[in-house]
Amino acid sequence: MNINTENPCVAGMDIGGTNTVFGIVDAQGNILCRDSVKTQEYPVIEEYIDAVCEKLICMVREHVGPNNLKGLGIGAPNGNYYSGCIEQAANLPWKGVVPIASMFSEKIGLRVVLTNDAKAAALGEMTYGAARGMKDFIMITLGTGVGSGIIVNGQLVYGYDGFAGELGHVMVRPGGRRCGCGRNGCLETYCSATGIVRTAREMLLASTEPSLLRRVPIEDLTSIDLYDAAVKDDKLALEIFRFTGTVLGEAIANFVLFSRPEAIILFGGLAKAGHFILEPTQAAMEANMYNVFKGKVKLLFSELKDADAAILGASVLAWEAK
Amino acid sequence: MNINTENPCVAGMDIGGTNTVFGIVDAQGNILCRDSVKTQEYPVIEEYIDAVCEKLICMVREHVGPNNLKGLGIGAPNGNYYSGCIEQAANLPWKGVVPIASMFSEKIGLRVVLTNDAKAAALGEMTYGAARGMKDFIMITLGTGVGSGIIVNGQLVYGYDGFAGELGHVMVRPGGRRCGCGRNGCLETYCSATGIVRTAREMLLASTEPSLLRRVPIEDLTSIDLYDAAVKDDKLALEIFRFTGTVLGEAIANFVLFSRPEAIILFGGLAKAGHFILEPTQAAMEANMYNVFKGKVKLLFSELKDADAAILGASVLAWEAK
Repeated sequence: MNINTENPCVAGMDIGGTNTVFGIVDAQGNILCRDSVKTQEYPVIEEYIDAVCEKLICMVREHVGPNNLKGLGIGAPNGNYYSGCIEQAANLPWKGVVPIASMFSEKIGLRVVLTNDAKAAALGEMTYGAARGMKDFIMITLGTGVGSGIIVNGQLVYGYDGFAGELGHVMVRPGGRRCGCGRNGCLETYCSATGIVRTAREMLLASTEPSLLRRVPIEDLTSIDLYDAAVKDDKLALEIFRFTGTVLGEAIANFVLFSRPEAIILFGGLAKAGHFILEPTQAAMEANMYNVFKGKVKLLFSELKDADAAILGASVLAWEAK
Repeated sequence: MNINTENPCVAGMDIGGTNTVFGIVDAQGNILCRDSVKTQEYPVIEEYIDAVCEKLICMVREHVGPNNLKGLGIGAPNGNYYSGCIEQAANLPWKGVVPIASMFSEKIGLRVVLTNDAKAAALGEMTYGAARGMKDFIMITLGTGVGSGIIVNGQLVYGYDGFAGELGHVMVRPGGRRCGCGRNGCLETYCSATGIVRTAREMLLASTEPSLLRRVPIEDLTSIDLYDAAVKDDKLALEIFRFTGTVLGEAIANFVLFSRPEAIILFGGLAKAGHFILEPTQAAMEANMYNVFKGKVKLLFSELKDADAAILGASVLAWEAK
């Protein structure tokens, strides 16, 4: 609507298992427009790229003018910053190694930068959210899995091959729950949205304690049911959050020893449980904290709106590339 | 002896609980000369500074000429890069917060840079040792305690307050052995030179199995006795190394998830046990490794001579400061 011929913009895109959302962001972090496609409707990658680019080009024409778009940043599960490829992403329809950055780049004639979704979220938080002004923090995304984006000295930690920051697979309970990665006791088997539901099922089966949760068929339970029950002061639901926060807080106390962040920032579905997850996490984090750091590391929630975070985070990548 | 009026040099100093060693290093990493003082003989910090500087100034006069010395780098327990202070170091004679960098700087009129001993070791290894050419690695020092220096993208990780990289205090056995830090189950209670001796005492008391180790009074056991017995194929000694390496390897598999290093480099007293410690560590590391990283992270020993490592590591700091 408002075609500004002077202000450069970038596009930010988040490729999720269900939806691919994308938008155009100006230099002040305003999302000028947004759109989406259903990821699973495009099992053929070329058709997916075509569908996204068609919508993207329309948006550019309508909102910013073609010469003002300076780049595209993409966040995706298993997205590799170094190679520009999505590698073996279990929840996406394209198998193997997909050179998505170069494919988009060829199609739209722009520089395209890829990283994984949690790293993009960390960049977004540093630029527009709770980590503004911070140079050292750890973003932990509590979604279907647990991801992380680690910022050290103002920069994302990519590591030797681009896959640094897999804190969801830190083994927090040796010999514990089976994880999708083939190992046991990973953080995400306890502290993801699916992990907390596993805890709920275990606790429901292990006792006969009355609980609002028993009104839902056990196989249909979701983390939202747990939140709803906790809000109504359901004892078992509160205990489930307490256990989950304890596991998370203990893990965070160990993470802090690595990079001594100014803050830990929680993001994603489970973070929406607010104080039900924050309080036990904070308590366990402090109880297990190395003395030198006690009381000094902030535990915060993301300040970005869910609908914006993914687009904003990915857009930061595009600015950085310039 | 050989005063080169063209080649700039720096001094590197390592402040240990027993000895303070220092030397002058040229731009090629040659240690031109070295000297030391007994740290514990100087409970008054000003007298310590005077004693060190007197020797240092003599060395400069004799070996490099005063205008060629460009800076002093210091590695010390609890040395803080940001503040230039040694803060609450348990094994040094000076209590509280000691502004050692500025004190040395005033005395010798040079830029002085401080960091902790493990971080200095990592810098030395990156410049002159096993990590030459690497941009992402983790140095683990297995001495009286366990320390670490983490290099990400070619830079030391200092964190928000300079105290990042305290991997010796990662809790690897919740509810485990009491640590000097006041918590339980820290890595260094198992994998330091003192930790392995604790394991030895526990195992000796828990069984009546014959062992060469029983010839040494249990309170006098050292990690060197363990090595000597392992060399003679003593079953219990081998089991002690196996247990220690297993704890270390499990911990390393978690560390890798953070920064995805190209290599883990082991340094310090316990690293001298060679394959007795390397093999079980490697086995446990691989057994617990996240699939994406399996077989891809090198486990190496430091390539720097013990007597050189501390001086060289600290000297790199001094070059960096320029």
